[in-house]
Amino acid sequence: MKINGTPYRSVWRDAQDPRLVHIFDQTKLPWTLDILDLRDVEAVAHAIRTMQVRGAPLIGAVAAYGLAFALDDDASDASLEKNAAFLHETRPTAINLRWALERMVAHLSPLPTHERAEAAYREADAICDEDVKVNEAIGRHGLELIRALWAERRLVQDRINILTHCNAGWIATVDWGTALAPIYMAHDEGIPVHVWVDETRPRNQGALLTAWELGAHGVPHTLIADNAGGHLMQHGEVDLIIVGTDRVTRQGDVANKIGTYLKALAAHDNQVPFWVALPSSTIDWRVTDGVKEIPIEERSGDEVTHVHGVDEQGHPARIRVTPYETKGANPAFDVTPARLVTGLITERGLCDASADGLQTLFPEQAEQPAS
Amino acid sequence: MKINGTPYRSVWRDAQDPRLVHIFDQTKLPWTLDILDLRDVEAVAHAIRTMQVRGAPLIGAVAAYGLAFALDDDASDASLEKNAAFLHETRPTAINLRWALERMVAHLSPLPTHERAEAAYREADAICDEDVKVNEAIGRHGLELIRALWAERRLVQDRINILTHCNAGWIATVDWGTALAPIYMAHDEGIPVHVWVDETRPRNQGALLTAWELGAHGVPHTLIADNAGGHLMQHGEVDLIIVGTDRVTRQGDVANKIGTYLKALAAHDNQVPFWVALPSSTIDWRVTDGVKEIPIEERSGDEVTHVHGVDEQGHPARIRVTPYETKGANPAFDVTPARLVTGLITERGLCDASADGLQTLFPEQAEQPAS
Repeated sequence: MKINGTPYRSVWRDAQDPRLVHIFDQTKLPWTLDILDLRDVEAVAHAIRTMQVRGAPLIGAVAAYGLAFALDDDASDASLEKNAAFLHETRPTAINLRWALERMVAHLSPLPTHERAEAAYREADAICDEDVKVNEAIGRHGLELIRALWAERRLVQDRINILTHCNAGWIATVDWGTALAPIYMAHDEGIPVHVWVDETRPRNQGALLTAWELGAHGVPHTLIADNAGGHLMQHGEVDLIIVGTDRVTRQGDVANKIGTYLKALAAHDNQVPFWVALPSSTIDWRVTDGVKEIPIEERSGDEVTHVHGVDEQGHPARIRVTPYETKGANPAFDVTPARLVTGLITERGLCDASADGLQTLFPEQAEQPAS
Repeated sequence: MKINGTPYRSVWRDAQDPRLVHIFDQTKLPWTLDILDLRDVEAVAHAIRTMQVRGAPLIGAVAAYGLAFALDDDASDASLEKNAAFLHETRPTAINLRWALERMVAHLSPLPTHERAEAAYREADAICDEDVKVNEAIGRHGLELIRALWAERRLVQDRINILTHCNAGWIATVDWGTALAPIYMAHDEGIPVHVWVDETRPRNQGALLTAWELGAHGVPHTLIADNAGGHLMQHGEVDLIIVGTDRVTRQGDVANKIGTYLKALAAHDNQVPFWVALPSSTIDWRVTDGVKEIPIEERSGDEVTHVHGVDEQGHPARIRVTPYETKGANPAFDVTPARLVTGLITERGLCDASADGLQTLFPEQAEQPAS
């Protein structure tokens, strides 16, 4: 997407030096736009570990280039295995990281060593291009929803108000994003979209990243406290909700950033359509009941007791927002039951958030056993 | 309630000098316990205007002393009228402030001027004592709910988990608080209560004030992001919700701090009892449909784009948490429809959140016309 008029991906190979890869340092966003040079596997591991890159699809893509750097130095079987393991350890729970590395190893192992490095760069490029295509398809399908709403409401209102929670934008993927892809497309074709950006405590991905990328591309948006969405829905100020997801079950339950469930409840109570955008790689066909079966990561309470931002001089600052003695609890995700989800937006199209809905789009998964 | 073992009210007359009144500077809490001296009406007006005192019942009580100070200097009719108006202007929308000042004027006007100052102090004392009695009664009635839950659940769990939103504690009243009064009483009689404290963005009254007063009194508690409550309820981690309110309608709709509605939806979805504690002065008998009729204050977006706390050196600090260009929207309250409210805890007892329920406890209001 665009940053002040210039199109970017969130990871790209240098135009002059094909063995140099660039990313944005996401720990410095939104206040500083710092483009980093990645030239070796250690730099890639550091970038992933310190969250200079984040977002499941993006991590996988950057790690693939990391493996290519390693093979430039040593393309032996031992190096391939060692460096894949080294990269995987940077964030061992990230599903897309493992997926990307396994894909690279499966592709490269059969090749003669002298061909591996060049093939690794091409395969990393392919991973990036496929991510963009998948997200673009999600965007096109989601765009239909926004077009239909605008066609219906343009006589009575001057914009379409879409609420989103957390960051499922282009900066979490290679380009387009998932939840934000339809919004960018609607904006680009002239539909007057306005986005209510949930702050997304405790890590503030909405305030920091979603607000930044929407602003940089020129999409009108307003930051709100996570508490405000229900009130806005009661008063007709939200036409549509689109969120991303970390895992969708076989029956359409949706694990996403903590607080998503509360927005889905309010949407249901006020007849606001609640859609979830996802690449099909996010569907976990082995899991059925999301509330019972998906383990929820409990993160440090310090993320609740402290907030970071910039001080009045523009310097990065971290402050404590509660008494010194107070401890925080910090479940990072929650599960929205399928009954509260209007539908899913995938690269193959829209479907009901249900076992039947998903199998209509993904018939090849029909024979898999439910857990 | 107690601060590290010593009992306090949130406003009190000095033991040696009866013409000196003390309050805590709530703008400095929780990091600094600063007790202020109030000796004249200007200091009282300043304290209210700058939110050194906040909370509807407490503002009313402090303003009553302010009028007493003014009458000490000049007890004429003109002075009484002028100073009541002056104090009222400090926060013109606070219902309890107007109520307390009107009560003072009605009580003092008929008296000869030489008796007015002394009578004003006594009437301010009476306002304080009555507030404490009302809250104590709310506490006793709410305590029954907690006792019943504990009797039922003590065989299967080792504590009662109560979630609250915002601050409806003793620091918002003269003593006891409303939502927190039953919790203090349960704790004091040995029931193992644990409180999930909603941070309450954007002004963080939960993180700043509720966490502080529970900690100071010794009640176990954990700070959570406002997003976390739904997940905790899905997993059986919340036995009861008690919140305060700014206004209750004739049919039991509840206006309270923004985000309350989302918690009520989650409570309803998970069969968690959702109770609202209030003095009956909070009931607006002229209003029926809260969502349609109660105007919601829209506060500055800066409260969403900025957060305050203390930096690593313990100095007060305010930081920006979103890009410089991003604007915030900030509705301060929302309305929870009566259908989501399990019941109301008033000084006269418990009742259903409905017209019938309220008229059972307040039969004298039955003949008033519904709007």
